[in-house]
Amino acid sequence: MEKDEYRQQIRTELDRVVDFWLKHSHDTEYGGFFTCIGRDGKVYDELKYVWLQGRQVWMYCRLYRTMERFRRPEILEAAKAGGAFLRNGGSGGDSWKCAFCLTRDGKAVKVQRTIFSECFYVLALDELSRVTGDVDMQAEAEQMLQQLVHWVRVDPSGLGRLRLPGDVPTSSMAVPMMLLCLVQQLMEGRGQEAEQRHGELGAWCVQQILQHVQRGGKAVLENVSAEGAELPGCQGRLQNPGHALEAGWFLLQYAAQRGDGELQRTAVDTFMELPYQQGWDQEHGGLFYFLDVDGHCPTQLEWSMKLWWPHCEALISFLMAYRRTGNPLLLHRFAQIFQYTFSHFSDAEHGEWFGYLTREGKVALDFKGGPFKGFFHVPRCLHMCELILDELLAGEGR
Amino acid sequence: MEKDEYRQQIRTELDRVVDFWLKHSHDTEYGGFFTCIGRDGKVYDELKYVWLQGRQVWMYCRLYRTMERFRRPEILEAAKAGGAFLRNGGSGGDSWKCAFCLTRDGKAVKVQRTIFSECFYVLALDELSRVTGDVDMQAEAEQMLQQLVHWVRVDPSGLGRLRLPGDVPTSSMAVPMMLLCLVQQLMEGRGQEAEQRHGELGAWCVQQILQHVQRGGKAVLENVSAEGAELPGCQGRLQNPGHALEAGWFLLQYAAQRGDGELQRTAVDTFMELPYQQGWDQEHGGLFYFLDVDGHCPTQLEWSMKLWWPHCEALISFLMAYRRTGNPLLLHRFAQIFQYTFSHFSDAEHGEWFGYLTREGKVALDFKGGPFKGFFHVPRCLHMCELILDELLAGEGR
Repeated sequence: MEKDEYRQQIRTELDRVVDFWLKHSHDTEYGGFFTCIGRDGKVYDELKYVWLQGRQVWMYCRLYRTMERFRRPEILEAAKAGGAFLRNGGSGGDSWKCAFCLTRDGKAVKVQRTIFSECFYVLALDELSRVTGDVDMQAEAEQMLQQLVHWVRVDPSGLGRLRLPGDVPTSSMAVPMMLLCLVQQLMEGRGQEAEQRHGELGAWCVQQILQHVQRGGKAVLENVSAEGAELPGCQGRLQNPGHALEAGWFLLQYAAQRGDGELQRTAVDTFMELPYQQGWDQEHGGLFYFLDVDGHCPTQLEWSMKLWWPHCEALISFLMAYRRTGNPLLLHRFAQIFQYTFSHFSDAEHGEWFGYLTREGKVALDFKGGPFKGFFHVPRCLHMCELILDELLAGEGR
Repeated sequence: MEKDEYRQQIRTELDRVVDFWLKHSHDTEYGGFFTCIGRDGKVYDELKYVWLQGRQVWMYCRLYRTMERFRRPEILEAAKAGGAFLRNGGSGGDSWKCAFCLTRDGKAVKVQRTIFSECFYVLALDELSRVTGDVDMQAEAEQMLQQLVHWVRVDPSGLGRLRLPGDVPTSSMAVPMMLLCLVQQLMEGRGQEAEQRHGELGAWCVQQILQHVQRGGKAVLENVSAEGAELPGCQGRLQNPGHALEAGWFLLQYAAQRGDGELQRTAVDTFMELPYQQGWDQEHGGLFYFLDVDGHCPTQLEWSMKLWWPHCEALISFLMAYRRTGNPLLLHRFAQIFQYTFSHFSDAEHGEWFGYLTREGKVALDFKGGPFKGFFHVPRCLHMCELILDELLAGEGR
């Protein structure tokens, strides 16, 4: 397939995905978004998951701000209503801690002892402030980031986790990845002043992510010790190829902004090609969800399932890497993953994508939205791939 | 197959399963049992899961106490060492709360905000006290039960869960089931005095379990409101056929001890035949793990997988129900489940059972022990079925 054909298919798919969520997810009574949405668009649970509220606000605003055809009042209004819902109900009490899950009318149901609800809160507020010009909102996003940094780098006790004698402090790759994502968000287009404010944190995140490269560069491991050493047992051996691939394009973007050729090579070789080689299922196609670096069976029941989001991250990674390097092998990888992804996850009948396939590629869970799947990975992937293809085609004079 | 053939196959299987754990799970250095054991018996993680420590102590002692061929010193010694490990390291601090997971040398890694580690602690200590005659240990089991009752019926704050504004109090079927199991354990063979001490709690558990029968008797739901009404959303619609089947034999045993014919009918019709009808996969065989009573797709990624333990519980239920009623349909159900279970879960090569199959019946995770699978459901099922078959065959004069 040619690049303009990819672009056309991706553009059409993005339109269908946006339509699906515009049509089915808005709660016009209480604000915010329904996140549990069945195959055909019907809401099967009214709980509102906070990660997904924040992500949908961010994604609507980003589409509104960066793609002409989505600069539509209904998208902006929905994003504003989502932002208001999040600010009213997102926090479980008087602290900075946000809930993980809310009732339809915004009462906290569950709070996680992690930082991720708060991270998506920052993402939402900053991007929304960019389209509305609300400076208070932007300031709140900056303040929340400082709170997050305090929890991660100074004192985690506010997260509510017990310190137990056998519980060694560990570094989960998700934390520096998430913070790097926020740094990139807050710095985008804001020049030297933002670089001064967040530059050190960005560099720290990159260094922390690189600590997960283990075994002489032959493996990316999800969990390492606080000092960056391999941990014993299943936790230490855990690999999540889709997550490594996502870190890959975070690092590549960071390297490109700074013209850091060495980091670019590490991003492509170690965070893209390596997880692809280790994570691609040679028998049935698709990326495994979890693997054990020594080949033991992971204890996660879903380890061999094929999830939508690792495939989204892989598409972004390989297309961005091709755009940066011009290496045709990377376009070939993109094409292979595109073929699997579009033929297995996309629902031709009702629109949007299935999220969860069996190892063999059969739909195992047929809903379009659930506790961890919302309006985020699919549209972010399609949005970014469309923009990268625009650049590539512009460079070729098309 | 004839009853004596079933008994022979079950007896042989029980011997092989006991051998597997005797050979591979004992930690002779720190006491207690390794619980993460690979297909061939190799330990792949040294963490010790507390549920499984307690369950293995209980199971060893029960085999030792009730089956002549297992009255072996090595089994008793291992149970004692496991009990000592549990008493030293089981508790995460100075409270009654037990850890969920320990390091190899017994330091707490994780504590759950539920009662289950403590329940298996009671089970282990009471059964161990029966074989050793240690009255202090038995008293400790009784005291811990009182603490559990306090958390469940009086004040849950000691479990460490936040009360959030949107978090409606719910009744999970696991809690009264577990407590009923403890009541039965502590009352067994102890006559009127134990009946006086625990009779009220047993009756309360039964009443609580029966609250999970909903929709005019046409469904057993895992979660209901504290008042026994159906809850909205996925949580309210959740069904776990294997769990209902396990409750079935708990209730049947209770009904038999009291000569309660009506409860016996409910146990068999509502907690065995109904979950079997709803939970059996007509296409591939085996019991689904989770279902949604309205036919929505459950949000648990593993909903359609076939797990070993629901099949263990189903075997006990239908054989016990046949023994109580003589209804040949129930023996037919037992035979069908036996056929699926023995041909899919049992590992002819290395012994013991696989725990996790795909919907189609292929092994998805090949370890023999993991965070939730230890020396418990398989040997408990084989042990109980062997004893029931002994009774049936004795009744037939064989």
